[in-house]
Formats: sequence, C-alpha cells, structure tokens
Amino acid sequence: MSYKYAYNTRDVKFILKEWLPLDEVLAYDRYKDYWSKDDVDTVVDQVRQIAEEVIAPTAEDGETFGVRYENGQAYIPPSFHKVYHFLQEQGWGTSNYGHQTEGALPLMIINMLVEIMSAANPAFMPYLNTGQGVVDIIQDYASKEVQERFLPKLLDGTWGGTMSITEPTTGSDAGDLLSKAIPTDVPGIYNIVGQKIFITCGDRDDVENIIHMYLARVQGAASGTKGLSLFVVPKYWVNDDGSLSPNDVQCIGVEHKMGLKGSSTAQLVVGENKGCRGFIVGNIPDETGAGQGMAQMFNMMNEARLDTGRLSTAVTANAYWNAKDYGKERVQGRLLTNPKAGRVTINQHEDVKRMYMMSKSTTEACRALLAKCYYYSDVKAYDPDPARRKWARSKLDVLTPLCKAYPSDEGWTLIGESLQSYGGYGYCEDYPAANSARDVKIWSIWEGTNYIQSMDLIGRKWTQAKGEHFASMLKEVEDFIAAQKGNWEGWELEIEHLEKALQAYRGIMMTAMGFMKSGNAGLIGLYARRILTATAQLYCGYLLLDQAVIASRCAQELGEDHYDYMYYYGKTLSARYYLRSIVPNVWYTADLIKIADRTAIDAPVEVFDF
Amino acid sequence: MSYKYAYNTRDVKFILKEWLPLDEVLAYDRYKDYWSKDDVDTVVDQVRQIAEEVIAPTAEDGETFGVRYENGQAYIPPSFHKVYHFLQEQGWGTSNYGHQTEGALPLMIINMLVEIMSAANPAFMPYLNTGQGVVDIIQDYASKEVQERFLPKLLDGTWGGTMSITEPTTGSDAGDLLSKAIPTDVPGIYNIVGQKIFITCGDRDDVENIIHMYLARVQGAASGTKGLSLFVVPKYWVNDDGSLSPNDVQCIGVEHKMGLKGSSTAQLVVGENKGCRGFIVGNIPDETGAGQGMAQMFNMMNEARLDTGRLSTAVTANAYWNAKDYGKERVQGRLLTNPKAGRVTINQHEDVKRMYMMSKSTTEACRALLAKCYYYSDVKAYDPDPARRKWARSKLDVLTPLCKAYPSDEGWTLIGESLQSYGGYGYCEDYPAANSARDVKIWSIWEGTNYIQSMDLIGRKWTQAKGEHFASMLKEVEDFIAAQKGNWEGWELEIEHLEKALQAYRGIMMTAMGFMKSGNAGLIGLYARRILTATAQLYCGYLLLDQAVIASRCAQELGEDHYDYMYYYGKTLSARYYLRSIVPNVWYTADLIKIADRTAIDAPVEVFDF
Repeated sequence: MSYKYAYNTRDVKFILKEWLPLDEVLAYDRYKDYWSKDDVDTVVDQVRQIAEEVIAPTAEDGETFGVRYENGQAYIPPSFHKVYHFLQEQGWGTSNYGHQTEGALPLMIINMLVEIMSAANPAFMPYLNTGQGVVDIIQDYASKEVQERFLPKLLDGTWGGTMSITEPTTGSDAGDLLSKAIPTDVPGIYNIVGQKIFITCGDRDDVENIIHMYLARVQGAASGTKGLSLFVVPKYWVNDDGSLSPNDVQCIGVEHKMGLKGSSTAQLVVGENKGCRGFIVGNIPDETGAGQGMAQMFNMMNEARLDTGRLSTAVTANAYWNAKDYGKERVQGRLLTNPKAGRVTINQHEDVKRMYMMSKSTTEACRALLAKCYYYSDVKAYDPDPARRKWARSKLDVLTPLCKAYPSDEGWTLIGESLQSYGGYGYCEDYPAANSARDVKIWSIWEGTNYIQSMDLIGRKWTQAKGEHFASMLKEVEDFIAAQKGNWEGWELEIEHLEKALQAYRGIMMTAMGFMKSGNAGLIGLYARRILTATAQLYCGYLLLDQAVIASRCAQELGEDHYDYMYYYGKTLSARYYLRSIVPNVWYTADLIKIADRTAIDAPVEVFDF
Repeated sequence: MSYKYAYNTRDVKFILKEWLPLDEVLAYDRYKDYWSKDDVDTVVDQVRQIAEEVIAPTAEDGETFGVRYENGQAYIPPSFHKVYHFLQEQGWGTSNYGHQTEGALPLMIINMLVEIMSAANPAFMPYLNTGQGVVDIIQDYASKEVQERFLPKLLDGTWGGTMSITEPTTGSDAGDLLSKAIPTDVPGIYNIVGQKIFITCGDRDDVENIIHMYLARVQGAASGTKGLSLFVVPKYWVNDDGSLSPNDVQCIGVEHKMGLKGSSTAQLVVGENKGCRGFIVGNIPDETGAGQGMAQMFNMMNEARLDTGRLSTAVTANAYWNAKDYGKERVQGRLLTNPKAGRVTINQHEDVKRMYMMSKSTTEACRALLAKCYYYSDVKAYDPDPARRKWARSKLDVLTPLCKAYPSDEGWTLIGESLQSYGGYGYCEDYPAANSARDVKIWSIWEGTNYIQSMDLIGRKWTQAKGEHFASMLKEVEDFIAAQKGNWEGWELEIEHLEKALQAYRGIMMTAMGFMKSGNAGLIGLYARRILTATAQLYCGYLLLDQAVIASRCAQELGEDHYDYMYYYGKTLSARYYLRSIVPNVWYTADLIKIADRTAIDAPVEVFDF
C-alpha cells in the first residue's frame, strides 16, 4: 500500500472556529437555521473519518487500475464508484453548491472539508468536485429550461460535469480554439463541432451522464477570447421525458500520466457525425460578435483554481505528515549538538526538522490563504449587502492566482524534501512519498499554468479597478503592521520582517512599472513567476502572523501541560519560521529583479541547441 | 516511446579541446603513445552515435520490463545484456580503469563520454559503471592474490561489481552497521554474515559473477566507522581453477522505485547458512581495533559521488534539450512584446526561455565542475610529480561534495521546469519529461544524502589541512577576479557579481564559524544545504566566466555567420545569466543565515503532529 492518509485536522478547526469570522457567515439567511459554530468539530471529525476509512482505501486502486479506455468508454477504478455515490448521498458533494439546497454547508466549511478528503485520494477528488463549477454556471447564467433539465441530477451526483476548454492546438491561449457552434432551428440550441483534450473527468463510467461546459465560437462571432460562448454539451442528450440519447460526444482516449493515475483525463471529439447539440449559456454573441463565454468560464475557472491550490496543499501536507510519522520510528545517526547521546530517531536531526518546518509553515500558509478565499466566497455569494458582495469578489479576484500557483509551485519542492527525509525509502513506491511527488506536478500546469497565473496577477490584478483592489490587499498588511508594531512583545523581528517585505514589495511593483515604461515588458514575463511567489509570501506572512496573534495568546493561557498547547505553540513556530526563513525571499526578489537581466529573453533560440 | 535522446556534445568537445589542459594529461606516460587531442572529436562522435543508436533504444525496456525478481535472482531487461557486453567489448567500459590496460582512455575523456552515454539510458549506466570502483579498490589496496583472482574478469566486464554499505538499520550512519566478519583458518579470508539493502546492481543476470565490495566489522574490532573493514565478497566463490561455486549470497528482493526502473536495487542476505566467505582488503584491524575499510570505501564512494552528479547533469541536460526540441514545434500564444505578430512557437516566450536558460546555464556549470574533477582525477592518478598528485587530490576532496549534491538538487527543480514548459503533455508519460523527473530524484539521496554532502563540505572540507585546501579553491576565484577586473570589456557587471559573491561567501564562513563558537552548532546543520548550494554557485560562477573568456573571444573572432558562432555566443549567455540571475543567491544566503533562525531546531518534535 503506497498511499497513506496521515491528515491532522486541528488547523482546519482553528481556522473555522478561532480565526475567520465564521459567525458572520453563519448569520446569513442561507445558513442561520441550519448551522452553528458548534457543528464544526462534528462535521470535521466525521469527514476525517470518512476520508480515512472510506476514501483512502481506494487510493491504491487509482494507481493499479488507473483509468482504462475501451471502445469509446473510459473506465475508472470500480472502488471509486461506490465512494462517489456514497459521498454524494451523504451530502458531502455537489448538493452543497445548489442555491436552493436546504441545509447546505457554508462554503467556508464544505471547502475545508474537501481539503481533508482530498488528501485521502487526490486522483478521486475531481470526480466529486468538477460538478460544482457546472452547477454554479448553470445557476448563474443559464436559462430556466436548461436549469430545470440539468440541475437536479447534477446536484444529486447522478450526473457529472466538466470544464472543456483545452484543444489540441490551444492550451494557454484559449482565444485561438477551433471548436464551432452552428445555430439550429431551435433558439438557444447549437450544433457543436470540435475536439477537446486534457478534459478532467471528460469520460467516466460511474455516472449516467456527463455535462460538459464547452467553450466554442458561434459561427461568425469575433476572433480571440472575445468571440467565445459557453455551451452545455451533455454526453447524452436529455430528452423531454428525461430519457437519454447519444449526443455524438466521443471519448477517443485517455492520457497516461506520471501521477493521479486514477483520474480520468480524456480526449473528446464532438460532432464528428454532425450529431452533437448544445445549449448556449446566457446570451448569443452581440452585434460586435462578442460572446459571454470567457467571462462565464472564468467564474468556473476561478473555483477550479482554488481547487487546484487546495489539492496541492492537501497532498503536500499529507506527504509531510507521512514523513514525520516515518521520522518518529526511523533510528539513524547522532545529533550534531549531542553526539554522545547515541543514535536518535531522524525527526530530531536539524536538516530533517528544517524539511518538516518548511512543509508545516508553508502548508499552513497555503491553507490560511485558501480558507480566507472560502470566507470571501461565502460573502460574495450570500451576504445581503451588495457592496460587501462586491468587496468580497474583489478580494477573491486578487488572491485567486496566488491560491492556484503558490501551493502548486511549492508542492514540488516540499514533497521533494519530504521524500528526501526518508532516505532511499522515499524513492520506493512502497512508501507514500513517491506517489505524492508524482501527483503534485500536474497542479502547476492545469487550470492555467503558473505563468498564466503570474501574468494574471501582474497584468490584470495589479491594475484592476485602477489598482484599488490590489492596493486594498497591501493595505491589509500595512494595517496589521501598524496595529502590532510596538504592541506585541517577542514578535518585534517578525513584524520588522513583514514591514521590510512590504516595502520591498512596493519596490518590486515600482521596478516592474519601470520595465513597462521603458519598453521592457519582456522583463515582466521573465520575472513574473518570481513576483507571484513574493506576493504570496508577503501576504501569507501576514496571514500566519495574524493567526499567531491568537495562537500565542492561547499557548500562554493554556500552559505547557494542556493537551492543546503543542498545536498553538506550533502555530507560533510556523509563523516565526515563515517570517524569518521564507519571507526574506521577498526582499531578495526585489533586489534581484533590479538587476533586470535580459539575457534569457535576448538569447536567440538557436543557442538552446547547445 | 517515452524516453528520448536529445544530447548535444559541443560543450563536451569545448571542455576537452579548448578549456581544460588536456595536453598536460596526454603527456603522461600512460597516454602519450596512444592518444592525442585530435582523437577527441572522433571518440565523442562515436560514443554519441552509440548512445543514440545502441543505448537509447533500450531505455523503454527499463520502464516496461523493469527489474524482475524470481526465486532468488534479479532479471534485468534482456536488451540491457547486449548493450552491456557490446560496450565492454568495444572498450567503452571498465577496462579503461585498469592500471595495466594498454591504450586506456584518459580519465578526463572516458568520464565525459560516460556523461554522453548516461543521458541515453540512465537506468542502464550503473551496470556499466559500478565495476570501476571495485577495480580501483582492488588495484590500490588488495593483495596480489585477490588482484589476480578478480581483476581480469572485472576489467573485461565478464563480472560486475557493487559497493555494499547500506543495511536495513543503517544508511547515513554507516558506523552502526551490523555485518560481521569472522576469521577462518585461512589468513585474509573471513566468514561474512549480514544484510545489505539498496545495493545498486546488487543482483543481475547479465554477468557471470558479482563482486561485492562489502563493508563489515571484524569480530572484536572497534565500534563506529573506525572498526570497519572492506571485503571482497563474490556472489559465486572463485575456485583455484577459476570455476564458480555458490557463496551463500542471496538476493531476497529488489526495490520498486519511482524511476530508474530498469536499474537493479537489491536486498542481499549473506552468510545466512554460514557459507559466505570474503577476502579482506588491505590489513586486518590493528591493535586499537581500527580497520581500513572506511578509508578504502571512501575512494570508491568519491568516484560514485562524481558519477551521481554526472547522471544528474546528463538527465537534466537531456530533459532540457528534449523540452527545447518540443518548444520549436509547439505553437501557442503571442509574444508579450509583439502580440500583433500572431501566434508563435513557445520557445520564443519569455518564461519558456527563462526555463531553458536556467537549465542551460546550470547544466553547463555542473558539467564544467565535473570535468574539472575528471582532470584532477587524471593528475591525481598519473602525474609523475607526487606533489602535483597530492595537489590534485586536495582539489578533488574539496569539490566532490559539490559535484554530488549541486547537480542532483538542481535536477529536481530544473526537470520540473522542463516538464512545465510542455504544458499538460509534460505530465504525460508519452513525452520524455515525466520519465526524467522520476529518474532524477534518487540522486539527491544515494551515495550519501545531500545533507551528508553538505556536512562533509562544512565539517571536513572547510577545515581539511588546516583549511588550506578550501582556501586554495577560494584563491582560484580570487585570482581570476584579480586577473579580469578592469581588463575584460563588457563583463564588468559579471566580475563585480563574482567579487560580491566571494565576499559574501567569506561572510557565510564567518557566520558559520560564529555559530560554532557560540555553541550554535545546530544552526550549521540547519543551513548546511543552503551553504553547499552557495558554494557551488560561487565556484561554478567562476568556472562559467573562465569558459566565457575563451568563448567570447571565439564568438568575436568567428563572427555571426560562422557555423560555430551560436555555440560560443550561447556560452557567453550562460555565463551572463548564471552571474546575473543565479549567483546573487550567494549573497542572499549570506544575509539569510545571519538571521540565525533557530525555530526549526528548537521546535519540540510534537509540533509536527499538527
């Protein structure tokens, strides 16, 4: 058994009960009669148990069975079927995203629960989660007819969903996609022709139907992303009596991946026999040829970007916790500082503790970042005050690229370190680290590569609303510094570092603006990924300190003998380590980009032949 | 076919013919009648062709066949057998390491050729190379009888060899191993009892016998590494008439690894039936119980450490060259700086060029570092002047931990980036990047983890010969700066950076010494791996600039229209990029370790449960 579940949920409970303003969200009409803060422990514990006892045992099937393709059908591991329907039936799945669902869990809570589940079998999770975005889009933008036809069976999990964007010739540049939509005699219904690749859950045999949110261009619409529209393209056409007929959506193969082997990544050919129909979502292209597809899709994509960061965080944290469990048992070597004490378990060695601490502090940082976004998701969706909904949306806009890219970039490094801490066993598939390493690499690529995220941050989010959204994020950090500086004994160095990082970050923005003004836009592309990392480190440094304000007080109040002391004390250490050993990268980045090294971009491509 | 060979050998030729003093080595008695500089192109081209046409086609078998274990025997891919014997017969194998071999290739040359071969099928290479260290030890330390019995068939490849150190309970701390040697009635022959794990090529079916260099403790010898002796333990006992009999060496299994699947990693049990004998190498333990095993083994281990760095470099370079080949074909997106020019191949995008340039400059840096060591290996082994042999040995001592750790640490990051540059295809096993990523991770672990290398650097190499050896390495850098400063037009910034890095590095040493003096030894362990990286970056910055002195002159002299211009020009870009975008990490490291963040080491291990 290579995959092992080692998740600890204490930090999730802290976030929901002690850090974020869950009460504010629980007061919304949608939730107030159903949920209270006291329910958090119960649902977290329940899902933790399900994750360990129901989901985790299927992980190995993902590796051994994989996804099989035969005669136009993708077959997923049989054990996944049972778990999928169990979770949907028990209310841990898509139903929580229905606007009309009675007793749905707050987004803040269900999304943290999904993290706990994700670590148990990351290859399985997309089967459970891809329906959510489809539900959101249909609820928000589709006609009543489409809603009635598709929502109920999506919400109860009878049908699955996908986001179908990428084509053989277009990945990052969706605006160049070739899929076409040709109007039929029925208004709102189009014939769809095209090919899609890398479609997560694009085919599977555990649901009766698959509802593709399919990006295509209506004949004659504008070129580029502007002209794209979104279509509801079911694998099987849903007749008026509810029966299903083939809809000329063919799965022509699945990818053989380095990891996430149990997750179906399908190649689709639609309308090859001129038999594929889809419902347009929202309006048809206007007189300028502009469709609404890209804007609609972005809603779904933004959620998928948070999902990606969450999967990365969950798998990285699980890899770290497995590593530290191994480190408790494995005896090897002597301590540098006390060699005479004899051999010790490896979890006591300096370099091993460094590896653990890197993972601990960074995964907590990522979890905090994501959780904050899930809080904003609730505010955005259900706060009665439109101004507050708009505010939450602006926060989400700014943070989403960080949520997607930072955890998935760090995951590769951190799981590499967790693997390293095992010694040779880390490289053996009988231990869980190798599996996690193979799994995590996709997340820096899918849902918009991390470069795309970086350019979204710099090109779009820095300047959105004349820069106000981003400035408000920096203001949060600034206000925190102002509030704590001189008032928080023992944390002077950490606050000083955060302040230095904030100043340095403003320097990064100045330098980058300078590049633009001096016609050096290429340098922005060159340094974009470093800048995104620095952005995440600055903001996460603030989040971890914000948590440490609470944790340090609790640790002090409870005292060392309290059963919860080590959690709170550990939280303060995460914040200290992050501020002292990770955040300095922000000012390093500021210095580095000032060098404005054009070597890589000025290089003729021919030099790379050598 | 997932594994692809995309190697370019121009840099190898530059190193041998234009950069390092090959003439000096070719003048040695061992070589002078056999080899001249003019042979370099011929042998490099020949081996490049063999790598592509003979070795690379077997790589896929490593992945699909793997290594199978049945009834006490490990079976390697059948196609590997043929290649192994072909290379040995053609003189590209172990014979080059025989002191008596007529016409052996200079170590500088054969070792660079092995890099070219390694990239073609890294899982195969240990079968070819592990015999070399065994030959060296037997030649240098074993009795004439042992030499006569074992050397001929090791040298012609009829038999293979291993380095057998690790045991189930001891990896990094070899001094605690449990294998025992009990004297027999025959002087020099011992009964051996013990278990070994992670033995590369520990069992295989392509050779008639396997000669294990087996580390064990003679009964009654001292504890720790001091008491260890080295034994020649053949899988089959070699009788006086040359016939073979079982020697109670059992292979009880092979590991199932994340990558390098075609490479045999065996678990051995020896002497379980009291039937295993081995020859002690060198002297029996002296009156203080001190054996010679560890010192002897270090010779072999140092070579294996260079091999490890070379494998990492080869696989990383091959992954990068595959990526840039893909980038020439794949059309996607528009240029930031010229969006109106329409869609372009991805090798023109800023972020993609950055990924290529990181890999190009870093693999060239690693190749330069290794090549310098292969030059020192020749001087150490064959220079007539004992003082010069000693000098070369001191250089090798200092550089070996860098050679092992730096390429293998960077490989994980760089191959991750090469994989990233493909987009989703990078994650699919039909493309070569995933395979390389899975392969490279082991090299930061085996032959002494990279932490062990870091502590070797700081704890041993910094202070060896009262610090003279290390100081002499820094002096090389200093002398280069002194010679070039103010004399090399257009390279002022690069020289300035190298000088700043050298100063910063001296600061790192001061800070670390300060840790020791203030009883903060733990902080050395904590920052050791960062310090090793900074050391490699400083020294490699110098090496790349040293190469650029030649390359910039050649580029200028030849002019842009010359077929070789892009190679030389590219070399100058590698140096510039490395000095401007990578070497700054040296001064960042200097600043960072001054923070002296003890958080990770002071953390009670209990905090990692959360």
